[in-house]
Amino acid sequence: MAEIQLTFPDGAKKTFDQAASLFDVAKSISTSLAKKAVAGKFNGEVVDLHQPLLEDGAIEIITKDDEAISLKAIWNTAAFVLAAVLKQRYPEMQFGEVNATEDGFFYDTDNQNGQLAVTDLPDIKKAMAKLIQSGEAIQRVNMSMADAKALFAGQTYKLALLDKVDADQVLVYQLGTYSDFALAPMLAKVSDVKFFELLSVAGAYWQGKSSNQMLQRVYGTAYPKQAELEADLQRRQEAKERDHRVIGNQLDLFFVDPKVGAGLPYWLPNGATIRRTIERYIIDKEVANGYEHVYTPILANLDLYKQSGHWDHYREDMFPPMDMGDGEMLELRPMNCPSHIQVYKHHPRSYRELPIRLAELGMMHRYEKSGALSGLQRVREMTLNDGHTFVRPDQIQNEFKSILNLMIQVYADFNINDYTFRLSYRDPKNTEKYYDDDEMWNKAQDMLKGAMDDLGLNYVEAEGEAAFYGPKLDVQTKTATGNEETLSTIQLDFMLPERFELEYVGEDGEMHRPVMIHRGLVSTMERFTAYLTEIYKGAFPTWLAPTQAVIIPVKNDLHYEYAKGVKDAMVKKGLRVRIDDRNEKMGYKIREAQTSKIPYTLVVGDQEMAEATVSVRKYGEDNAVEEASDMFVNAIFAEVGNYSRDGKKHASKVNL
Amino acid sequence: MAEIQLTFPDGAKKTFDQAASLFDVAKSISTSLAKKAVAGKFNGEVVDLHQPLLEDGAIEIITKDDEAISLKAIWNTAAFVLAAVLKQRYPEMQFGEVNATEDGFFYDTDNQNGQLAVTDLPDIKKAMAKLIQSGEAIQRVNMSMADAKALFAGQTYKLALLDKVDADQVLVYQLGTYSDFALAPMLAKVSDVKFFELLSVAGAYWQGKSSNQMLQRVYGTAYPKQAELEADLQRRQEAKERDHRVIGNQLDLFFVDPKVGAGLPYWLPNGATIRRTIERYIIDKEVANGYEHVYTPILANLDLYKQSGHWDHYREDMFPPMDMGDGEMLELRPMNCPSHIQVYKHHPRSYRELPIRLAELGMMHRYEKSGALSGLQRVREMTLNDGHTFVRPDQIQNEFKSILNLMIQVYADFNINDYTFRLSYRDPKNTEKYYDDDEMWNKAQDMLKGAMDDLGLNYVEAEGEAAFYGPKLDVQTKTATGNEETLSTIQLDFMLPERFELEYVGEDGEMHRPVMIHRGLVSTMERFTAYLTEIYKGAFPTWLAPTQAVIIPVKNDLHYEYAKGVKDAMVKKGLRVRIDDRNEKMGYKIREAQTSKIPYTLVVGDQEMAEATVSVRKYGEDNAVEEASDMFVNAIFAEVGNYSRDGKKHASKVNL
Repeated sequence: MAEIQLTFPDGAKKTFDQAASLFDVAKSISTSLAKKAVAGKFNGEVVDLHQPLLEDGAIEIITKDDEAISLKAIWNTAAFVLAAVLKQRYPEMQFGEVNATEDGFFYDTDNQNGQLAVTDLPDIKKAMAKLIQSGEAIQRVNMSMADAKALFAGQTYKLALLDKVDADQVLVYQLGTYSDFALAPMLAKVSDVKFFELLSVAGAYWQGKSSNQMLQRVYGTAYPKQAELEADLQRRQEAKERDHRVIGNQLDLFFVDPKVGAGLPYWLPNGATIRRTIERYIIDKEVANGYEHVYTPILANLDLYKQSGHWDHYREDMFPPMDMGDGEMLELRPMNCPSHIQVYKHHPRSYRELPIRLAELGMMHRYEKSGALSGLQRVREMTLNDGHTFVRPDQIQNEFKSILNLMIQVYADFNINDYTFRLSYRDPKNTEKYYDDDEMWNKAQDMLKGAMDDLGLNYVEAEGEAAFYGPKLDVQTKTATGNEETLSTIQLDFMLPERFELEYVGEDGEMHRPVMIHRGLVSTMERFTAYLTEIYKGAFPTWLAPTQAVIIPVKNDLHYEYAKGVKDAMVKKGLRVRIDDRNEKMGYKIREAQTSKIPYTLVVGDQEMAEATVSVRKYGEDNAVEEASDMFVNAIFAEVGNYSRDGKKHASKVNL
Repeated sequence: MAEIQLTFPDGAKKTFDQAASLFDVAKSISTSLAKKAVAGKFNGEVVDLHQPLLEDGAIEIITKDDEAISLKAIWNTAAFVLAAVLKQRYPEMQFGEVNATEDGFFYDTDNQNGQLAVTDLPDIKKAMAKLIQSGEAIQRVNMSMADAKALFAGQTYKLALLDKVDADQVLVYQLGTYSDFALAPMLAKVSDVKFFELLSVAGAYWQGKSSNQMLQRVYGTAYPKQAELEADLQRRQEAKERDHRVIGNQLDLFFVDPKVGAGLPYWLPNGATIRRTIERYIIDKEVANGYEHVYTPILANLDLYKQSGHWDHYREDMFPPMDMGDGEMLELRPMNCPSHIQVYKHHPRSYRELPIRLAELGMMHRYEKSGALSGLQRVREMTLNDGHTFVRPDQIQNEFKSILNLMIQVYADFNINDYTFRLSYRDPKNTEKYYDDDEMWNKAQDMLKGAMDDLGLNYVEAEGEAAFYGPKLDVQTKTATGNEETLSTIQLDFMLPERFELEYVGEDGEMHRPVMIHRGLVSTMERFTAYLTEIYKGAFPTWLAPTQAVIIPVKNDLHYEYAKGVKDAMVKKGLRVRIDDRNEKMGYKIREAQTSKIPYTLVVGDQEMAEATVSVRKYGEDNAVEEASDMFVNAIFAEVGNYSRDGKKHASKVNL
């Protein structure tokens, strides 16, 4: 038998029979290592523990201590078992892509004779459990590409996937009559899949392209311990209840139709009202804080983005330029900075005018990968709460402080409490990687740090995390699913003023270069609304709620006029209120108002009419309270004017 | 000598010597006709009266009674004289395009040895007058293309223009040593140019393309009578004072930089404030009137515009689609209707919900020709005050009335009084040219007419002016330059509901098709702001003015604090006010506030401080009035809340 030479991590070399597996190697070292091993690496790549090795190479044994790879092996095996069971139940089923994700696995399927339904999952799960208990062995076979193609004949998607494999041989797994590939690493035996769950079935385009056929993606997850599985399911349930896509659908906030445009959301009236309220709030707040709002075009000659450097460094995320003929190329802007630079340059500027603070709700377009798109959180067309302040170098610290102060006020108004600050500096050991102005970097970094200290804010310092063109501050927060996300940024920029030759006349009569500060208080309208939807679980505070109150007359013929009077008094104060005079039972109407998460439900009947009161039920409370009608109107008006600052009602719902 | 046969308008034919001109023909009929003739038509095309005719054809004599062509001949001749004079003064000058416009002429020039300045115009005018008085004769020569090219050798632009002429022969005019072409019809002799004026010099790209070289365009005009010239100059002066591009520059409202993007305006802080105020007003007004505002994406799959028919019928005005790969073509929307249709279709609809009124400040892109672009009036990126109401056929009349009512309220709020209504019907003799539903057309037209009559509104009826898909109402107004413009439209549409298969469940439980009404109350934000700037002559009413009041302390050290108190009281009421504490003389500050057309200038000194008053000077008034500070704040607040409804101040300035 031929032999192969394997090199261990410590450099030692050892000879094995050809087709030995990493399991054999582990066994040759110690039984306990073989027991703990779940996978290996061959020439740096993760491979199956039981894959026959055919040539010399560097190896590594991966044990259960490597949790990520252990879980991947469990999820790959569970996906494999799922497919084996599906194939048995639906012999004509075609199989597409399969993958272990961050928290489980999925398998794309195409059942020609009828769609899978979520109600099929329990039976499929039972069959999987049975197969797992049987402990049937998984065979590994290294196959030539020709043999593999013959084996998967008739499986259109699998053949397309095989075509993409850049190797002569492919490792095929077999369980009974079912064969599969591209699932490394897998567990040694199916019985090692202990605790698993099938989660859902959803549509997914073949290879993620909307022009392709729609397949059905089955999602599942699995863990070595019961408690881990339960914790995951609990977390999923919690995330689902907060998921802005789910709530967005329930409350009619927005929709996306991939056929008309993936990543291009339509804001329905309810969502649009929330967005408009946020926009007006932000603009008024910024104007009151010395910002000058502008509207600038979303299209510009491509040359502008060549000058800014976006075309060189950011092209992948940009939409293709439109060729207008005669050499004119128009580009959808990926960022607003060059637009605001045009405004700065429109007039000569004096040191007396600085800081100049320009702001805009600026629409931008970025071509995110279709797989990355998600509801309002990640889109291709977005409107950024953008601002650029142009300062003298000596003004950096004060301006930074005033932006921070504004940001903290805004957070308080939205009752956002769960965030952390991160200051990013250049890497002191690699200063040549950054914009070349040592003095500016040192001063600026000291100013940012000094400002944070002056304001008594806690922060993390991250050396080497700064962008090429200047240090920055990020405000980090968490999404419903626990992912970290940047809510706000204050980014210093020494480079763009240079590239666009920005100037101001100094006190000395000479020309000087300003520093630019890019800042976003609440990111894009899309992402911020998604974030708020999740922290509020859809129960928007009164000032943001699309409908702030619904009035239910006990009997339309007797109490409608009184209800109308209460409504008119509220509308006059700018409140969003409607009367529910449908021919439905009162209990039904009240329940519906609760489901719609309307902050106040007012019932008016004989007693209320007689006493000039309203019966007020706050969202989430069981009991109604009688209040004088005018007192209630004044109270809700005051509440709206105070934004979410009292926040008692909603704070209790924010548990990330 | 060879002969040609000419056919008269009455069909009579007559033989002339070859190379006879239409002047010879006129003379052969009567001396008086020859005297009155200014041009002619040869085979339907306007030609020079003195052009030698070389072949048989149909002719027509045009006399001075045809004012348009007479003026064109005067303007062509004046342009020719201008060029002859310029050539004499600047022998190295290159000449580009020349044209008679609606109210004068222009000639594009390129002077290699120094630019023309507006201060050169008086001397040039004198030289033109001298040449005109000399009465030198204009020669006409029919030349072969080869001879013409030889004659214009060295004149790069002229040679390029010759290349575009699709004929073997070209009519060349000669005056002394100066030659030119493409100026038909021209007057018989230069001395017929009686009263003329050179107006301005401005940059113009060669052939209107921003990628081409910038030339200098000289503008002028001319008339047969002194009074006509004076009236024109007067009108121009008036228009200039109202021209929103001039005012926009003076008041820092907006700018356009053709290098970054022609037709893509940047709204500066002052203009943006006006626009934002209009937008909030319109949205609040519409929401109060039952409209649901949405935000919809400006990009969509091209298929959407194929389905709507825009791609077939409107492609010329659309931007080129962006090819995203995998067959996905994304298109910048030219109209918002298909977007709102998507929103309508997102839910099943019941007859009970109708009318459904969707509205949006919807951004759209239309690729207007660069020559048509003008400030904010005609742009390539625009935001339309758009709305679509979906109604049952029986609701057309009521909905039309309610839109009209809303429109009239909005006009009153902006103090717009000078407008007329025009109802457009289908052509009763060509009903097959229109969407095929006789009953719908008849009913709908009757409903519109009935509504106008019910509301007691005057209107013009225009048969055959309706669009293919339904009748409409236009509101016509005039721009500063006297051009008629459509400010608002209410357009019925039977076609799009059909194309997109829109439905609602009727009271009978069956599916029915709604009618769509497209309506814009105030057109685009760009065009409306341009219009308002012109009717207000930049003196925006208080509620729209970017700065509503400026406070000038007599002495900063003594009166600033008091000024600050007044300012704070105003800011608290949401007013836009600033303190002018620069180290400038008071008179200078007051004059500047007037130049900036700020509605109120408040001066505060010892007396005001002692008596808690402000010295108030209204824009456009010579004298200041003492008012109690709190009274003034309340009064201006009330004025803002009343929009432009009192309008006394501004109405006097609106004289179209």
